[in-house]
Amino acid sequence: VCREEDITRNGRVQDVLREIRARAGDRTVGGSITVPASELRTWRVRIVSRNTFPTAAGLASSAAGYACLVHTLADVYAVKESVPGELSTIARQGSGSACRSLYGGFVEWSMGGMVDGSDSRAVQVATEAHWPELSLLIAVVSDKKKETGSTDGMVRSVQTSELLRHRALVVVPARLAAIEAAYKAKDFPTFAKITMQDSNQFHAACMDTYPPIFYMNDVSKRVIALVHKINDAAGRTVAGYTFDAGPNAVVFALKEDQAHVLAVLLAHFPPPEALLKEGCVRRGGERERGGS
Amino acid sequence: VCREEDITRNGRVQDVLREIRARAGDRTVGGSITVPASELRTWRVRIVSRNTFPTAAGLASSAAGYACLVHTLADVYAVKESVPGELSTIARQGSGSACRSLYGGFVEWSMGGMVDGSDSRAVQVATEAHWPELSLLIAVVSDKKKETGSTDGMVRSVQTSELLRHRALVVVPARLAAIEAAYKAKDFPTFAKITMQDSNQFHAACMDTYPPIFYMNDVSKRVIALVHKINDAAGRTVAGYTFDAGPNAVVFALKEDQAHVLAVLLAHFPPPEALLKEGCVRRGGERERGGS
Repeated sequence: VCREEDITRNGRVQDVLREIRARAGDRTVGGSITVPASELRTWRVRIVSRNTFPTAAGLASSAAGYACLVHTLADVYAVKESVPGELSTIARQGSGSACRSLYGGFVEWSMGGMVDGSDSRAVQVATEAHWPELSLLIAVVSDKKKETGSTDGMVRSVQTSELLRHRALVVVPARLAAIEAAYKAKDFPTFAKITMQDSNQFHAACMDTYPPIFYMNDVSKRVIALVHKINDAAGRTVAGYTFDAGPNAVVFALKEDQAHVLAVLLAHFPPPEALLKEGCVRRGGERERGGS
Repeated sequence: VCREEDITRNGRVQDVLREIRARAGDRTVGGSITVPASELRTWRVRIVSRNTFPTAAGLASSAAGYACLVHTLADVYAVKESVPGELSTIARQGSGSACRSLYGGFVEWSMGGMVDGSDSRAVQVATEAHWPELSLLIAVVSDKKKETGSTDGMVRSVQTSELLRHRALVVVPARLAAIEAAYKAKDFPTFAKITMQDSNQFHAACMDTYPPIFYMNDVSKRVIALVHKINDAAGRTVAGYTFDAGPNAVVFALKEDQAHVLAVLLAHFPPPEALLKEGCVRRGGERERGGS
């Protein structure tokens, strides 16, 4: 489904465009200028975006979209960062978490100290090459658009949740240091436990919002219970989970355990016949196509 | 369904019996002693308990049961309190919240300062005669026994939830003072808002427990959303909700709004045909029988 939208009235896209154009460089081919910055700044754009993942369902679609948009516009307008992470600061204006999505691996969103947010940017803690054994399974519980948008929800949580304040001031700083250390040391049990605890605590803060926000549903909770049962049965941490602002589960495991975890998930949540016919899932727990 | 149980091995019941027997007085009729305390202390008991409400489903069945048991045993053993609330301290040893259930109206469970819990007791803030216009509707979402018992759940939350610690130390003391004032002033909007926020925050702390505890389900959340919609539509606080350690909703309103709230609830959650046939519910929102 392709739908044309007038982006002149989309404030966030315009913010991103303005910031990119202000940093336009000279387009060059083999060292010679083909389009000087002065001309490039006057270029208008037509954006065509295609997404193979559920949109606005809590699977970071806006983060992916704005990260891709900023990366591509920076290429078109020949933008060079004057400080590392400058592009992530622009992506953040489209969607907060988009700043992180410009990099692979483990990325920290550093809040920064400036009132205007100009130093709020992403910092890559470890590249995607650091821990290739870590693998993700996305269990799409619902691809419906969520009732509360992430940004609106976060604004309401900041205004009304006393637990969120405590979480932001006290809990998260300590956890961030611990999870970065665990990631760098490839300590899966510690990394998994902190991730699960932090996912639960984020959703706890949503529930403490007034009126409360519920992103997870009964199926999400069954996935959580199943992951804990997998770990209990194995007597070690085989898998972990995390849920963004939606009901869909991100289940993660080391590559050596991935097939086992997927098999258990498929046994408890058999895919609809339609998906089996399309060949997206092969019985027995192997996946043929579809992103991870 | 009647089931006989050997209570000699039920630690909590034995605790309650021991405490009651130690306080046995002389049974009297018209001023003359019929059974002296020394004999009464040797009496053994057979307890027959009957409950018309779902048990262990988060509807305070253990609180009701132990409150009733302590009240009745105190009568049998002619116990007189040496300090007000002494019986509630005994009930607390059966089930924490049972201490509150010995009184009507608005009751505070005062934690106390003694390590052995001997001064942890209930204090009646206002009697049941203070605010007769306040009415409760119990919406039984599920009468199945819950997966995590309240006591076990609370122990795990105390051990693992950082949010619960903040809630207990900082949030609850302030809220308790505010809700007591609202109850005494019969300020329904304030009373309702604090109750809803506190219910949500209790469930948030459960979710922040590791592994997480989920008492509410998708139906519970639909009841919550519906109450907020009823209030939004009316432009005032018509109803509130609170959920104990289970999925079942306690929806409260002033008597003048009760019929309206019940009608909306029944429209969105039509009762099963079986209940209609039994005559428990009359179409149109009026209730014929069943406790509130």
